[in-house]
Amino acid sequence: MAPVAPRSGDAIFASVERVNAELFTLTYGAIVRQLLTDLEEVEEVNKQLDQMGYNIGIRLIDEFLAKSNVARCVDFKETAEVIAKVGFKMFLGVTASVSNWDADGTCCSIVLEDNPLVDFVELPDTCQGLYYCNVLSGVIRGALEMVSMKTEVSWVRDMLRGDDAFELQVKLLKQVPEEYPYKDDE
Amino acid sequence: MAPVAPRSGDAIFASVERVNAELFTLTYGAIVRQLLTDLEEVEEVNKQLDQMGYNIGIRLIDEFLAKSNVARCVDFKETAEVIAKVGFKMFLGVTASVSNWDADGTCCSIVLEDNPLVDFVELPDTCQGLYYCNVLSGVIRGALEMVSMKTEVSWVRDMLRGDDAFELQVKLLKQVPEEYPYKDDE
Repeated sequence: MAPVAPRSGDAIFASVERVNAELFTLTYGAIVRQLLTDLEEVEEVNKQLDQMGYNIGIRLIDEFLAKSNVARCVDFKETAEVIAKVGFKMFLGVTASVSNWDADGTCCSIVLEDNPLVDFVELPDTCQGLYYCNVLSGVIRGALEMVSMKTEVSWVRDMLRGDDAFELQVKLLKQVPEEYPYKDDE
Repeated sequence: MAPVAPRSGDAIFASVERVNAELFTLTYGAIVRQLLTDLEEVEEVNKQLDQMGYNIGIRLIDEFLAKSNVARCVDFKETAEVIAKVGFKMFLGVTASVSNWDADGTCCSIVLEDNPLVDFVELPDTCQGLYYCNVLSGVIRGALEMVSMKTEVSWVRDMLRGDDAFELQVKLLKQVPEEYPYKDDE
């Protein structure tokens, strides 16, 4: 069977069902606020947001594979590019860029200049240790785990902490390529 | 100044920034799951979802008034229609209908046949008392409070409980029309 051409993030984003971004932003804000009230410790909130993201990521990958027609990525480098260019566009409507590769191609940065999660958000002084967007690191970690890439994802820059962009460092820890959960017709 | 024509929910929905509906659905699911873990009591989760919705509603009304060009509604009847036809379309991309008016026009039902919050959701037996979509009742209550309508919003039908639609009863308790937070040029 001839492979189906992968679709651009823009084309996919235009074709999927969507909801109002402000509703999403406010809903996400309500979660963070709720967690801050219930858990008190900022460190715990970071952990829970990451865990929530992980749970979202392990399911979102199905939608991603179903809608994007992206073929199996040959390596981690290609995977990172696909996350940045197709994944972010498809789900959040923004594009990210990939940079800061290490020598052996197992660690890079995904940089976001536009981030709908933080519209209208300002952190009070009491939340200085908070990684407000920690759900994103969890989503990437969860989604990659479902395509057999065990990763560690952490924040390098955060605009809510005064940096000039959002930068996530994604580090590949282990890869088990034969366990891809989708069929490959090649 | 001539009044600006109100825009249809479809037109507004097409023009606002949006995010992938599945991401929203999964994010909302992650909140509910988190609350169930943290709070244990289903009744408490219902309360928190409603409160989160309220906090979202009191902010979402600004976006609604800014983008919809809807003029001041003459009465509660018109308000309910605007919520169903413009509000739901603008934020969730679905339309609702209004029915079951009581004799004095202060209580009605908003009925939703399509509800992106519940895609892929099935409630386990342990969650039978849960109003999974309780955030919606809070949003309506919060938004209406900001235009000086004190309401009580409760579920009459819930598809996750086996009903054939989602039906919210909205009851007007008190109205203070002179406190509308936006200027009216008429």
